[in-house]
Amino acid sequence: MDRKANIARLKEIDHERVLYQNITALLGWDQEINMPESGVEGRSEQMALMQGVLHDKITSGEIGDLLDALGASEQQSSGDPSFSDMERGLIREYFREYNRERKIPKKLVQEMAVVTSKAQPAWVEARKSQDFSIFQTHLEKIVALTRETTECLGYKEHPYDPLIDQYEPGMTTSEVARVFSGVKKDIVALLGKIAEKGQVDDSFLYEPYDNKLQDDFGRKILTDMGFDFQRGILTESAHPFTTGVGKDDIRITTRYNEPSMSSSLFSTIHEGGHALYEMGAASPELKGTSLGTGISLAVHESQSRFWENIVARSDDFWENYYASLQGMFPDQLGKVSRDAFVRGINKVEPSMIRVNADEVTYSLHIILRFEIETALVNGELEVKDLPEAWNEKMREMLGVIPANSAEGVLQDVHWSAGLIGYFPTYALGNLFSAQFLETLKQEIPDYREHISSGNLIHLQRWLNEKIYQKGGVYTATEVLQQVTGKPLDPSHFSRYLEEKYTRIYDL
Amino acid sequence: MDRKANIARLKEIDHERVLYQNITALLGWDQEINMPESGVEGRSEQMALMQGVLHDKITSGEIGDLLDALGASEQQSSGDPSFSDMERGLIREYFREYNRERKIPKKLVQEMAVVTSKAQPAWVEARKSQDFSIFQTHLEKIVALTRETTECLGYKEHPYDPLIDQYEPGMTTSEVARVFSGVKKDIVALLGKIAEKGQVDDSFLYEPYDNKLQDDFGRKILTDMGFDFQRGILTESAHPFTTGVGKDDIRITTRYNEPSMSSSLFSTIHEGGHALYEMGAASPELKGTSLGTGISLAVHESQSRFWENIVARSDDFWENYYASLQGMFPDQLGKVSRDAFVRGINKVEPSMIRVNADEVTYSLHIILRFEIETALVNGELEVKDLPEAWNEKMREMLGVIPANSAEGVLQDVHWSAGLIGYFPTYALGNLFSAQFLETLKQEIPDYREHISSGNLIHLQRWLNEKIYQKGGVYTATEVLQQVTGKPLDPSHFSRYLEEKYTRIYDL
Repeated sequence: MDRKANIARLKEIDHERVLYQNITALLGWDQEINMPESGVEGRSEQMALMQGVLHDKITSGEIGDLLDALGASEQQSSGDPSFSDMERGLIREYFREYNRERKIPKKLVQEMAVVTSKAQPAWVEARKSQDFSIFQTHLEKIVALTRETTECLGYKEHPYDPLIDQYEPGMTTSEVARVFSGVKKDIVALLGKIAEKGQVDDSFLYEPYDNKLQDDFGRKILTDMGFDFQRGILTESAHPFTTGVGKDDIRITTRYNEPSMSSSLFSTIHEGGHALYEMGAASPELKGTSLGTGISLAVHESQSRFWENIVARSDDFWENYYASLQGMFPDQLGKVSRDAFVRGINKVEPSMIRVNADEVTYSLHIILRFEIETALVNGELEVKDLPEAWNEKMREMLGVIPANSAEGVLQDVHWSAGLIGYFPTYALGNLFSAQFLETLKQEIPDYREHISSGNLIHLQRWLNEKIYQKGGVYTATEVLQQVTGKPLDPSHFSRYLEEKYTRIYDL
Repeated sequence: MDRKANIARLKEIDHERVLYQNITALLGWDQEINMPESGVEGRSEQMALMQGVLHDKITSGEIGDLLDALGASEQQSSGDPSFSDMERGLIREYFREYNRERKIPKKLVQEMAVVTSKAQPAWVEARKSQDFSIFQTHLEKIVALTRETTECLGYKEHPYDPLIDQYEPGMTTSEVARVFSGVKKDIVALLGKIAEKGQVDDSFLYEPYDNKLQDDFGRKILTDMGFDFQRGILTESAHPFTTGVGKDDIRITTRYNEPSMSSSLFSTIHEGGHALYEMGAASPELKGTSLGTGISLAVHESQSRFWENIVARSDDFWENYYASLQGMFPDQLGKVSRDAFVRGINKVEPSMIRVNADEVTYSLHIILRFEIETALVNGELEVKDLPEAWNEKMREMLGVIPANSAEGVLQDVHWSAGLIGYFPTYALGNLFSAQFLETLKQEIPDYREHISSGNLIHLQRWLNEKIYQKGGVYTATEVLQQVTGKPLDPSHFSRYLEEKYTRIYDL
C-alpha cells in the first residue's frame, strides 16, 4: 500500500474507534443519570467489554504496521509535507498511544482494574466512617501498581513524568513544579493581603432557590454562550460533568442547591465551557475522528474556567444579567446590590474541600495534591503517612486543618480509581486560561463591552477560531504558542488574580 | 475439545453477545429518551457498528464448528441427555439463528438497511401529508427485498412462513390463518351484538389529569405487580416500550394524556407486564445468557396483555384500586361510580387506529394486517392497490372506513422499518393470555379474590413459576403445552371476550 492508502486505512480504523469511544461515553453517562441501582454489575461488564475492544484496537499489529509504513516517530510531526496538519496530528496521537499502551502488560492493566474496583467501595466506606485506615491498604496497592506502570512506561527524570504525560501529553514533572512554585508563592501572598480585609457577605447564595427557575436561567446563559441545544443536552446528576456521546451529542450535567445557588450556576457555565470546546472541534475534516475533541485536559479545563471565572464571575457579566436574575428571585436577591452580588460570588476563604473552593485558593488545593502525588510515586512519602502529610500541607498553604479525613485526604474519588497524575491539569487549566485572556485583550480590546452587553457569542467565535476548531490537530504547547505567541507563563494567572481581587477586596 | 468444553465455549461467546445486545438496547432507549436532535447521524453509525458485530458473532465459523461438534440439528432438543434443558435450549437457538443469518447475504441486509433508512422519513412525510404515493415506491422496494429474503431463507408452504418464524419461532402461516379465522368470526359476531346495545360513557377519561399524580399511581400499581424499581426504571417517551439494558436493568416507558388517562395507565401496566417477564427470566443458570429473556414475541405480548386487560381492566382489580384513584382525582372521577368507570375503560367501539383500539376490536386490526402482509408477500396484492385493499377490509371487519391514509394504511411505523411478519404476534399474544387464564382458574380457583384484595404478587409468583423463570429454555409451543397441557386453542380467547363483554354490555 502507498502512503495515501495507509493514511486512509488509519482514518477508517480511527472512525470505528471513535464510535466505540462514543458508546463507552454513553454507558458512563447513563450510569450516572438513569441506570437503576442493581444495573451496576451488568454495566461494569459492558464497560469492560468496550474498554477491552478499545485496548485491542489501539495496540493491534495493524496499527503498528501502519505507523511503520507511515514513517511515524517521536519527531513525526515535522515529517511528510504531503500530509495535512490533521493527518500529521493523527499519526502523532496514534504513535503516542500505541507505544504507551503496548508497554503496559495486559496483566498489569487487569490487576489495576481488580484493585480499583475494590478500592472504590472501600473509599466510599472510609470517607463515610472518616477512617483512612479502611482505604489505606487499597491505596498502597494502587500506588505500587502505579509505580510498576511508570517502570514499564519508562522516564528520563521523574517516575511521575509518564503519569502526567498520560493526561497532559508533553508536560513534565519539572515543568509543572516550575510553574506551580511561582503561582503558589503569589497566591499565598495574595491570601495574606485578603485576610487583612473584612470578609464579604455571601449568605444570600445559600438561601433556597427554585430548581426550575435556576435551570431556566442556566439554559438562557448557555444559549447566549453558543451552546447548541440541538447538538447537546443539560441534565441533573450528583456530580457535574461533560461527556461526548457523539460529535453532535454533547452532554453536560449540573446539580442544584448543593451547596449554594452559585455553585450550581457556575457548574452549569463551567461544563458549558467544556461543551463549547467539544462542539467547536467539528470541522468537516475532524468530525468523527479522534482529533474532533479537545487536545488535552489542561486546555479543556482552561475553557471551562475561562467561561466560569474570567467571563461569568466578572462584574461586566452581571452588568447584563443581574437584573434578570434579581427579577427571577426577588425574595433572595431583591435587596442585594449588583456590587454585593459580584463580591459574594467571588468570596475568597480558605476551606477544606477542593470542589467548593474559590478561584484564588483552588490552585493551592491542586498544588498540594501534586506535591503529595510526586512524593508518593518516587517513594519519598508512604501511604500510611499520608493523612499527616496532607494536614501539614493544608496548614502551610491554606492555614486550615481538616477536622477529619473525610474533609481531608479522603475527599476526592480520583486515587481510588487509580487516577494519579490527573490533578495538575485542573490548575494548569487556570494558567492557560489567564494566558489566553492576555491575547484576547490585545486582539479584542473592547472584549469587556461585549461581555457587559451580553454579546457572549463574540467571545465564543474568537475562542472557536483560535482553539476549538483546531480540535486535537496540534499539541497543547503548539496551541498555546499559536494563540499567545509564548510558552506557558504562570505570571499571567498571578497578575489576573492580583488585579481582580484588588478590586473585589479593595486591597 | 470434548462436549463439555464446547458448551462452555458457546456459553462464553453467548455472554459476550448478550453484552453487545444490552449495549445496543441502551443505544435505542437513549435515542428515544435523551438524545439531542442532531445526534441521530452518529447514533445510526453506532447502532450499525453494534449490529454488524452481532451479525458477525452469530454467523462466525467458530459457531458453526461448535454447533457441528455439539451435534446440533433441527431435532437437537431431543438430543444428548448429558446436557441440561438450558444447554439444549441454547444449542437450539444458536442453530436456528446461525442457519437463518448465514442464509441472508450481507449485501441484502445492507440493501434493506439503506432502503429502510430512506423509507422511514418518507413514511413520516407521507403520513403528515396524508399522501400514500410519497411512501409507495419505498414500500415497493421493501416488499421486493422481503420477497428476496424469503427466497434466501426458503420455505415449504408459504413465503410468509420464514417471516413470521423470525418473530415467532415455529409458527407458520397456515397455523396463524387457522387460529385467526375462528377468532375473526367470533369477534365480528360479538361486535354485532354490542352494536345493538346503548354505548357506554367514557368522556371522563378524556379530561385533563395531572401527570405527576398519574405517574405516582402507575408506580404504585407497578410495585404491587412486583416490578422491582431497584432493577428497572419508568420514564416518559413518545411511544411506550420496554427494553432490557441488562439483566438487572429493565426499562419501561409510558406517556401521559395521549389521548386519555386510561391509555396512559394501561400503557404503564402493559409495559409493566413485559418487564415482569424480563425480570423473572433471571435464574442463576439463565442470568447473562441469551436465554435470560422472554421466549417469543407472542408469549411476551401474552404477559403484557394479561396484566393490562385480564387483570387491570377487570372489575375485581378496581374493587381494590378505584377508591384511591378517585381520591387522587376528585374533580374528574368524584361523580363516576366504580361500575361506570369499569365500563368506561372497557368501552368497545370500532375505530381507525390500532394502538388506541379496545380489547375486542384490537385483534381485528391485526388480522387485517396479517391478511394484507401475506397477500403482499406472495404477490396476490400489489403495493399500489394497498390503500384500497386496506379500506375495503376495514369496512368488512370493523364497519368503518378511514377518511385518509394517515388514519388508514399509513398509521403504523412497522413496514417502513422492514418489519413484515411481526404484526401477528400481537394478536397471538391475546390468544396465549386467554389460554393461560384457563389454567390459572384451575390452579388458583380464588384468583379473583387475590386481584380484588390487591394481592397481585400472588399472580406474579404463579406466572413467574409457570412462565417467566423458564426464560428462553423451551419453545413457545412447549411452554404453552407445559402450562396449559394443550396446543394453541383460540376458543379460550373468544370465550373470554364473550363472557366479559356480556357483563359489560349486558348482552
